[in-house]
Amino acid sequence: MRAIDRAVRWRYPAAVKVLILGGDGYLGWPTAMHLAQAGHDVAVADNLLRRNMATELGTNSLTPIQPLQDRVTVFKELTGNEVRPFFGDLIDAQFVDEVFSEVRPDSVIHYGEQPSAPYSMIDRRHAVATQRNNVEGNLNVLYAMRDLTPQAHLVKLGTMGEYGTPNIDIEEGFIEIEHKGRKDTLPFPKLPGSMYHLSKVHDSHNIHFACRIWGLAATDLNQGVVYGIRTEESALDERVCTRFDYDEVFGTVLNRFCVQAVVGHPLTVYGKGGQTRGFLNIIDTLQCVRLAVENPAAGGEFRVFNQFTEQFSVNELAEIVRRVGGGMGINVSVESVPGPRIEAEEHYYNAAHTKLVELGLHAHPLTDDVVIHMIETVARYKDRILVGPIAPKTRWDPRS
Amino acid sequence: MRAIDRAVRWRYPAAVKVLILGGDGYLGWPTAMHLAQAGHDVAVADNLLRRNMATELGTNSLTPIQPLQDRVTVFKELTGNEVRPFFGDLIDAQFVDEVFSEVRPDSVIHYGEQPSAPYSMIDRRHAVATQRNNVEGNLNVLYAMRDLTPQAHLVKLGTMGEYGTPNIDIEEGFIEIEHKGRKDTLPFPKLPGSMYHLSKVHDSHNIHFACRIWGLAATDLNQGVVYGIRTEESALDERVCTRFDYDEVFGTVLNRFCVQAVVGHPLTVYGKGGQTRGFLNIIDTLQCVRLAVENPAAGGEFRVFNQFTEQFSVNELAEIVRRVGGGMGINVSVESVPGPRIEAEEHYYNAAHTKLVELGLHAHPLTDDVVIHMIETVARYKDRILVGPIAPKTRWDPRS
Repeated sequence: MRAIDRAVRWRYPAAVKVLILGGDGYLGWPTAMHLAQAGHDVAVADNLLRRNMATELGTNSLTPIQPLQDRVTVFKELTGNEVRPFFGDLIDAQFVDEVFSEVRPDSVIHYGEQPSAPYSMIDRRHAVATQRNNVEGNLNVLYAMRDLTPQAHLVKLGTMGEYGTPNIDIEEGFIEIEHKGRKDTLPFPKLPGSMYHLSKVHDSHNIHFACRIWGLAATDLNQGVVYGIRTEESALDERVCTRFDYDEVFGTVLNRFCVQAVVGHPLTVYGKGGQTRGFLNIIDTLQCVRLAVENPAAGGEFRVFNQFTEQFSVNELAEIVRRVGGGMGINVSVESVPGPRIEAEEHYYNAAHTKLVELGLHAHPLTDDVVIHMIETVARYKDRILVGPIAPKTRWDPRS
Repeated sequence: MRAIDRAVRWRYPAAVKVLILGGDGYLGWPTAMHLAQAGHDVAVADNLLRRNMATELGTNSLTPIQPLQDRVTVFKELTGNEVRPFFGDLIDAQFVDEVFSEVRPDSVIHYGEQPSAPYSMIDRRHAVATQRNNVEGNLNVLYAMRDLTPQAHLVKLGTMGEYGTPNIDIEEGFIEIEHKGRKDTLPFPKLPGSMYHLSKVHDSHNIHFACRIWGLAATDLNQGVVYGIRTEESALDERVCTRFDYDEVFGTVLNRFCVQAVVGHPLTVYGKGGQTRGFLNIIDTLQCVRLAVENPAAGGEFRVFNQFTEQFSVNELAEIVRRVGGGMGINVSVESVPGPRIEAEEHYYNAAHTKLVELGLHAHPLTDDVVIHMIETVARYKDRILVGPIAPKTRWDPRS
């Protein structure tokens, strides 16, 4: 175990029992390894939805990923740390209760949701499936916590996309409003931009209620757009690497741009490219989630952290990849394509993100070295890239 | 047809095709008759959920209600006006599309949701069923509108309970927020108090999105607590009267108090009784819904009206029923029982409700005569009252 882990364990000496829902996904699996390496007792539950969705859409992970059963076996061989896998669906209340009864978690990290905005906008069936999967699964978790582990701390993955792009500064979950001579601190108004983002807003309201009414403890991590592949644990062996999506439905923007650069596809900037969002390295996702787990919310508290480290516009990211790629001898072109989404392409954006810093987040900024490393990793798997799913097809309004 | 109907039709001469979802319920059926009498072309769809829930909980309607098939037959005999019934579930996307294709509505009035906060709080199964029924049904409606009747106007029944009891004045759906030197008008923050109220908040966000992205026209009627039985049309014949619930799960507070007064049960005030809400007579519900239908929102507009006429605390309502009952020779006692809900029992409350007045709402206030008439009607059906379901049993936290 590395020095930094020992240091953090000294600050938070107690190892806790952690249940990671969605522990087979892009972020869930690296989180499982990271927390196990940090000395926590980790179990994961997954219904393999992400793998099945990729199969449905004919896409793949850039990186070759192993079955979850093999991942945990290899990880134990490599580190001696055990991660217990459970296979089932959060929609199945009985499965949820069985896992909670068996694991008795102190901390529940809930990544177990359909994570793609474009997927949710394919058609009615995908919209309804997304909201059902996410909202009902989350409700089942809240009831399991109430009835089986009421002292546990829920760390829920939300998204910065819940806020949309209001014309005022975005605060962390709540805002003090002065109105007609009176004041209150109320949930920050939400303007989500897809059926997926809406599902996360619904979750936030349901969790806030559970905290108010049942005294549950919860941290809602409104995460920005994640980029990157490599974490310390996933670098141990290719057999424990995480998935990396680059297609128009599941790939986040910087990951997509790196793949486009490598295959010689123009970087697909949607419309004017002024869309500005918060971003973070996958390494910082793990760090943030761990900080939340090791500094739990109090009973009855619904805490919201905006989880990102830097803001960029899409144009800025395209320019970074173009410039860095150029330095690596890759000729990268940038193309504005009609935006498949309906969103503001130029807007004000300034979001607070200090609470995780106050807990000790040490950000890894998007340096040229980070981009170089991403492009190098993508290049290593270049032969696996499917070009078909790269161009944007899923439109927010199919009639347009 | 009565003079007032002709007058209103003169103001809004065009008869429109109206589809009422949940057209067999407490408000849906009177609305169907009212709009048909006003000259509109009315169809109703219902899955009979309200009747089935009453059966499940062993409660009944104070008034003897006829099957929907008989209601429409009798109503046609009485008035010559046809109301077309469709039987099916909004969860069933194919049914929704069939009804929209067949009716091609200009206006969709959506009452078709599980309407009880206590029902949603019985246990996990009822919570999940409530959110599934309401959220997915509403999503199916939004997609049917997008794909089949994009020019139609959605009149959606929300609830004042979406707002909760913030310490500032409640506005109608949106609030202008000035924050760190910038301004925006954003959705009013929501603090819903049950799994049912949460489902309505989810609906509001989903509908707002559909208006922003697809250009649908919608009016969200955040309705207060409705009381009363008699509407002009339901008084035509007992066979077309609407249901009237008085039990702890489905009865609204004033309706419950009138029944408690008649059977000699103490009026069940929850806790301190300072809970203050907006209220309206069922007659004004019909008037408001009709005003919304006949003054539609524009394409892309998401309009929110707070639909109530007066504010009362529970204590004030209990005192009114005690005093009026006393004048009728009924000895009414008032009893504070431990509140089964988790809610503020004393709080600030001041909610705007001017938009419907600006459209022409002529309110029917809660006069002594109204209460006398309610108590007289209840007394007429006294023999049908089941005493068992009156006392509160459904607790927001079953562990408390």
